[in-house]
Amino acid sequence: VEVVERVNRLDAILSAINAEMAAAPERGTVADYIPSLAKVSPDHFGIAVILADGSIHTAGDADTPFSIQSVSKVFTLTMALQKHGDELWSRVGREPSGSAFNSIVQLENEGGIPRNPFINAGAIVVSDVVLDGAEPRAAIGDVLRFVRMLASDEAITIDNDVANSEAATGFRNVALANYMKSFGNMDPYVEGALKLYFHQCALSLSCRQLAMAGRYLMNDGTHPQTGEAIISPLLTRRINALMLMCGHYDGSGEFAFRVGIPGKSGVGGGILAIVPGRASIAVWSPGLNARGNSKLGTHALERLADATGWSVFMPTL
Amino acid sequence: VEVVERVNRLDAILSAINAEMAAAPERGTVADYIPSLAKVSPDHFGIAVILADGSIHTAGDADTPFSIQSVSKVFTLTMALQKHGDELWSRVGREPSGSAFNSIVQLENEGGIPRNPFINAGAIVVSDVVLDGAEPRAAIGDVLRFVRMLASDEAITIDNDVANSEAATGFRNVALANYMKSFGNMDPYVEGALKLYFHQCALSLSCRQLAMAGRYLMNDGTHPQTGEAIISPLLTRRINALMLMCGHYDGSGEFAFRVGIPGKSGVGGGILAIVPGRASIAVWSPGLNARGNSKLGTHALERLADATGWSVFMPTL
Amino acid sequence: VEVVERVNRLDAILSAINAEMAAAPERGTVADYIPSLAKVSPDHFGIAVILADGSIHTAGDADTPFSIQSVSKVFTLTMALQKHGDELWSRVGREPSGSAFNSIVQLENEGGIPRNPFINAGAIVVSDVVLDGAEPRAAIGDVLRFVRMLASDEAITIDNDVANSEAATGFRNVALANYMKSFGNMDPYVEGALKLYFHQCALSLSCRQLAMAGRYLMNDGTHPQTGEAIISPLLTRRINALMLMCGHYDGSGEFAFRVGIPGKSGVGGGILAIVPGRASIAVWSPGLNARGNSKLGTHALERLADATGWSVFMPTL
Amino acid sequence: VEVVERVNRLDAILSAINAEMAAAPERGTVADYIPSLAKVSPDHFGIAVILADGSIHTAGDADTPFSIQSVSKVFTLTMALQKHGDELWSRVGREPSGSAFNSIVQLENEGGIPRNPFINAGAIVVSDVVLDGAEPRAAIGDVLRFVRMLASDEAITIDNDVANSEAATGFRNVALANYMKSFGNMDPYVEGALKLYFHQCALSLSCRQLAMAGRYLMNDGTHPQTGEAIISPLLTRRINALMLMCGHYDGSGEFAFRVGIPGKSGVGGGILAIVPGRASIAVWSPGLNARGNSKLGTHALERLADATGWSVFMPTL
Repeated sequence: VEVVERVNRLDAILSAINAEMAAAPERGTVADYIPSLAKVSPDHFGIAVILADGSIHTAGDADTPFSIQSVSKVFTLTMALQKHGDELWSRVGREPSGSAFNSIVQLENEGGIPRNPFINAGAIVVSDVVLDGAEPRAAIGDVLRFVRMLASDEAITIDNDVANSEAATGFRNVALANYMKSFGNMDPYVEGALKLYFHQCALSLSCRQLAMAGRYLMNDGTHPQTGEAIISPLLTRRINALMLMCGHYDGSGEFAFRVGIPGKSGVGGGILAIVPGRASIAVWSPGLNARGNSKLGTHALERLADATGWSVFMPTL
Repeated sequence: VEVVERVNRLDAILSAINAEMAAAPERGTVADYIPSLAKVSPDHFGIAVILADGSIHTAGDADTPFSIQSVSKVFTLTMALQKHGDELWSRVGREPSGSAFNSIVQLENEGGIPRNPFINAGAIVVSDVVLDGAEPRAAIGDVLRFVRMLASDEAITIDNDVANSEAATGFRNVALANYMKSFGNMDPYVEGALKLYFHQCALSLSCRQLAMAGRYLMNDGTHPQTGEAIISPLLTRRINALMLMCGHYDGSGEFAFRVGIPGKSGVGGGILAIVPGRASIAVWSPGLNARGNSKLGTHALERLADATGWSVFMPTL
Repeated sequence: VEVVERVNRLDAILSAINAEMAAAPERGTVADYIPSLAKVSPDHFGIAVILADGSIHTAGDADTPFSIQSVSKVFTLTMALQKHGDELWSRVGREPSGSAFNSIVQLENEGGIPRNPFINAGAIVVSDVVLDGAEPRAAIGDVLRFVRMLASDEAITIDNDVANSEAATGFRNVALANYMKSFGNMDPYVEGALKLYFHQCALSLSCRQLAMAGRYLMNDGTHPQTGEAIISPLLTRRINALMLMCGHYDGSGEFAFRVGIPGKSGVGGGILAIVPGRASIAVWSPGLNARGNSKLGTHALERLADATGWSVFMPTL
Repeated sequence: VEVVERVNRLDAILSAINAEMAAAPERGTVADYIPSLAKVSPDHFGIAVILADGSIHTAGDADTPFSIQSVSKVFTLTMALQKHGDELWSRVGREPSGSAFNSIVQLENEGGIPRNPFINAGAIVVSDVVLDGAEPRAAIGDVLRFVRMLASDEAITIDNDVANSEAATGFRNVALANYMKSFGNMDPYVEGALKLYFHQCALSLSCRQLAMAGRYLMNDGTHPQTGEAIISPLLTRRINALMLMCGHYDGSGEFAFRVGIPGKSGVGGGILAIVPGRASIAVWSPGLNARGNSKLGTHALERLADATGWSVFMPTL
């Protein structure tokens, strides 16, 4: 009975959050650097929560696919750690960057080693590790299959229009890759890692699919349906720590302060948030705040955390 | 029976950690910028853990007082939030700084607003809020009484030699204060806030006393002995979030990654670490690592977290 | 006959420049950080040129005293080089700073050594050298006597109101001094150097007096009336080089590009410009451009350089 | 008779300088980032001076060709100013950078506009202007013909091995170009401008040839043999101003202070220095000082300036 009530209460919370967000007048600014992102309406809002018991709870546009963009960095980081373990950390740091997501300044000061795997430079290094000298096409297929497996959903796709648009405009990422190559921190064939990077960012998932894909992170690294150990419990906790510390660019401190849950945002307006042992949450609203994170998505997660008490800093958790 | 076992196991863990740390050949470098700190032997190691049930567990030099230095910033932040609540955040930010504890660069770029209350500039603003135009002597007394009350221990003192040494050499802090004053972010009488700052850093506590003082932070803001609400549960979680995000200067990401517990370090070699709902922990070893945090103290907390599973990212917590 | 014509032509040029500047609609922004500067009318414009033959040519408000502010740094640099010669360069650099006049960032990156003697931090170190452990009052008298001697004019004064206002508001300079002290690059008694610095900036000269004071810099270091060697020919050329490279903060490149004459500006709107072997020029108009240099003063010097061919890059010079 | 004496004295000065440099034990470090540069012996030293009367004076290895590298930036800047005049300055600044030649930090802070045309980023923009949408091969031919014309010497070549090596290793320059492209400050086809840039840097000239090529800069922009106006007198003075302000990266202040002559250095160890109206000077020694400028070349020019009185800050010039 208690479980039923709790679940009913969660559905009521999500419903109330959805109503509040649907009515919100200030919805942030949709990313406009590529046409495919610019044409998405800021009116969208969706949320999906998957509990430890496997139950799925959604509200709003929870089944509309969107471009997950930087949220994909969580999945490629997992793949890179699977392949190379802690060797990865000789090529990328684990500290908050204190600057914007595409900053090149820090790279110069620190000899081509990106501060963490969630700023663009760090994610490009991670893509280089995942690529591992293979053909980009093969690695792109690997990433897509990995995310489908995590989400138990073969319908997930990569939006090639988005990927090609990013490749055609992402000169700052090309600059970052070449800059790191000049320090010896990239395979000489940077085009390959960049191609993978542009394609992983173009992964198209709905909130439901994204929350499904994130289940292993609330579950100590184990796939809840197959029982497969995707990654060790220790590394799972470390990925969650990185999400909390660095998952929202230079708005990470604010997010930890207000929401208190590990999360990773993308400029498509999606956020994946993990309550260890409790819930895998995906939220989506395309309008961004000044730090480049989903404005309503952040508000929604703050509401959800307040209503449920979900916070890694909560003593009763 | 189970409780007894768990407690016995904790004592065994602390004992093993103490033995390992006593034998550690690499002990870091003792801070030498003032004579009182420089003369402390790097051989010291102490740890104290207070559980939610009030039981106290110690090993090593847990009853030797040391200069808590920047750990004091947690207590003055609590006092400032008591006084002014969220108004504080118009004068100090909540983001990791991405640079060293005494950096002045960020202040210039961001118009005199320190990134967070745990870098020196931010803590000086917090001291200015605590001082609130009063006489420094009175405010110093307030801080001392507050910490004694938190720890339920009237024997806690401020080491005036340390305070005076810091006042006589802390020119960079004088520079920070005047720099913020030039932006209008300090009371014109900066000497008062600086005097308070130098004295709070000179608070002298043992590991046992420090862990006692930190109990309210594991206990949703309530003093476990008196039942007094020191600060609201929400603000308590936020202080813990700030400790995790910013408590170890530009080694905060590393600490969150390895230990996963909110903590605040000081150059005297002390660290206060909080496991919400579980434990208040103090550890002390004077030798520092390259980021200015206690080398063995950090190792000890990593060992403790591994052995106990205490991590805010642990699903079973 | 030719000399008479050249002189007549110079007077005509100055007269035309004065007329153009009197009519200029865009006059820049008067510095307003202290009341004494803020109340000066932007309508003022004055210019004085002293040729190698000693003849004096003026136009506009050439006899109205104004606060020379940072132009004074040229004179205290001369005094410091008289005292210590090239030893000075262990405490202050000789490179353009690439940043604003009161930037503290560069100091952090370069261990408390200011980039050059004309940014505020560098000038404060120079004042510390001039002070040399003496009483500030005595050193202030020395500087005043030195400038009077250079200008052959006992009527020059220091405006104590300006000096006191700057002392009461110059917290950023207090910050710079304490910051350098923390690196050991200031005498511990920073108040003395700051007092001297605030008073030298409050020197009050007319264009005529300032051009007179600058004569030694066009004359290989020798006072043209007394024949006294103020400073060696080599050091004179080096002071002129520093003025060209660093005399207009981060507008120095632009000034060298457009005007091509060594010059030093101040926020009071004055500029001292030196054509080696030819002319000592002072210009004054209180409105500043975006880089903090006199807007009309800069225009006037560009006009003068174009009309006379005075440029250190002119082959016919 | 006087002319003969002066000339004889110059030959004696060059001879003495050559002897001193031949014997110098500390010769700096040869650039080693590409094999073609690394294999050049640091024992080389050469100097060539061309006076306004056309007489040529040399000492040492004045007829050994070397890779002029960044000295070429002076010639492409001249070509870009010929083509577009002051429009160029909307894409590149005129201020000293205050940082290293290949710094990317400043670009981020200033929206993709390089500080000046002599840092790498600025020179790449200049090459983009020179290319002007043409085929790189054609533009490379234009630059080669231009330098041959300036030097009146058809034997000058581009070392394709050097150009190809730079293309194969110059990833930081690729990063700079893409970074500026992301700000819209490069033609999308960055490969073309980079190809031109790598080839202009591979121009191979002896001191004699380089001093010949620089004659127009001492001669108000006019080719002394053909009488052709290469560039206007005003722009000539401005190029010389830029050389003085920015020609030696973040050693420019030091060079202006010690030598006082507009100059441009290259990592091949060459320096072109211009005494307006007097002399075009080329010096070469492959070992570099800490700022990346020829160590003995700089010393030699300081000796030459002292012995001849050549300095733009010299009143008797």
